[in-house]
Amino acid sequence: MAYKENYPSKLLEEAVDAITTLPGVGRRSALRLALHLLKQPLENVHHFTSSINSFRDNVKYCNTCMMISDNDQCSICSDHTRDRRTICVVESVRDVMSIENTGQFHGVYHVLGGIISPINGVGPSDLTIRQLVDRVSQLTLQDDLSSEVEVILALSGDVEGETTSFYIYRQISSFPVKVSSLARGLGFGDDLEYADELTLGRSIVNRQIFKP
Amino acid sequence: MAYKENYPSKLLEEAVDAITTLPGVGRRSALRLALHLLKQPLENVHHFTSSINSFRDNVKYCNTCMMISDNDQCSICSDHTRDRRTICVVESVRDVMSIENTGQFHGVYHVLGGIISPINGVGPSDLTIRQLVDRVSQLTLQDDLSSEVEVILALSGDVEGETTSFYIYRQISSFPVKVSSLARGLGFGDDLEYADELTLGRSIVNRQIFKP
Repeated sequence: MAYKENYPSKLLEEAVDAITTLPGVGRRSALRLALHLLKQPLENVHHFTSSINSFRDNVKYCNTCMMISDNDQCSICSDHTRDRRTICVVESVRDVMSIENTGQFHGVYHVLGGIISPINGVGPSDLTIRQLVDRVSQLTLQDDLSSEVEVILALSGDVEGETTSFYIYRQISSFPVKVSSLARGLGFGDDLEYADELTLGRSIVNRQIFKP
Repeated sequence: MAYKENYPSKLLEEAVDAITTLPGVGRRSALRLALHLLKQPLENVHHFTSSINSFRDNVKYCNTCMMISDNDQCSICSDHTRDRRTICVVESVRDVMSIENTGQFHGVYHVLGGIISPINGVGPSDLTIRQLVDRVSQLTLQDDLSSEVEVILALSGDVEGETTSFYIYRQISSFPVKVSSLARGLGFGDDLEYADELTLGRSIVNRQIFKP
């Protein structure tokens, strides 16, 4: 057989190899996607790849909450109607988008960029926990007696989420802040991302004081 | 709400828009893929996009059978051990790869590049049927009395496949060729691509004279 793995073309094989690096895409799906792209006009394929490149090359993160943003400050942090003394700590950008979709939260966010997971080699220093501690520290120094500072730990209900919540709690509990966690209206072990808006909205409304 | 569709970044939204153009990828999956790419090293993402671009920009087609190839002639057509007087007509590149995987076929191919489908606006002139007729015409002119020319219509068993088979049969039946079709060991309406290798292999072995 003259083919390696039966691919008729080295270029096709390299494209399939590249597409297979996407999560959840096997070699058969990758082949279908590659041949789909082959049938598209050249400018559509170039638009596809340049959109991805320009996203990856030029995306910025909000200096305050680490959310993906086109500017140095995201539209939530620069919105003066949002309560800056209520910080919702989430794992990822998608979690911010999920909570925003509930319409139940009017504070600001802090995106950790992951979750503590020794099995995946992710430790506290790989996340934005230090920035969160600095942020809480500065907020509590501000001479604003009108409202308490609150940190909502909105992490998934699995072991890694609980571990991360506990770690953060220990880092910030010395400051005069209220620390709460999402109401366990979410099923234990459910991914936050897949919760329906009603459940997630109730979990925000019914959040409870963090008792480790 | 400052967001359009709740995307925190125009760049992210454009990347999601681009990824959603892939078949079978919804906006939620596209968002997950975009955020996955964001976590990858820059050079991996550039390798991903440049592999796709160089595939789309530089892929060639075999002059003889229209198969994807890195050269002007594909490795099957340039293989002198293959029987050039037995032409297997298929819809797509994937069908060639499926039949090659059965190991049951030792002739050559002709890739139509699609199937006649009025509902999708695909007519005979959009396919490589003219090239097939020229190829059959030249083969039957060759002074080779050792073997008959055979055209195997290996198209899917649905209405569009049958229509295309019938159309091709009418175009080539005036030449001294044997026209066969795949044994209907394939379930009626099944996609050729998803057949298991055993069924597809038997269908090649048990091919029968085309009787429209």
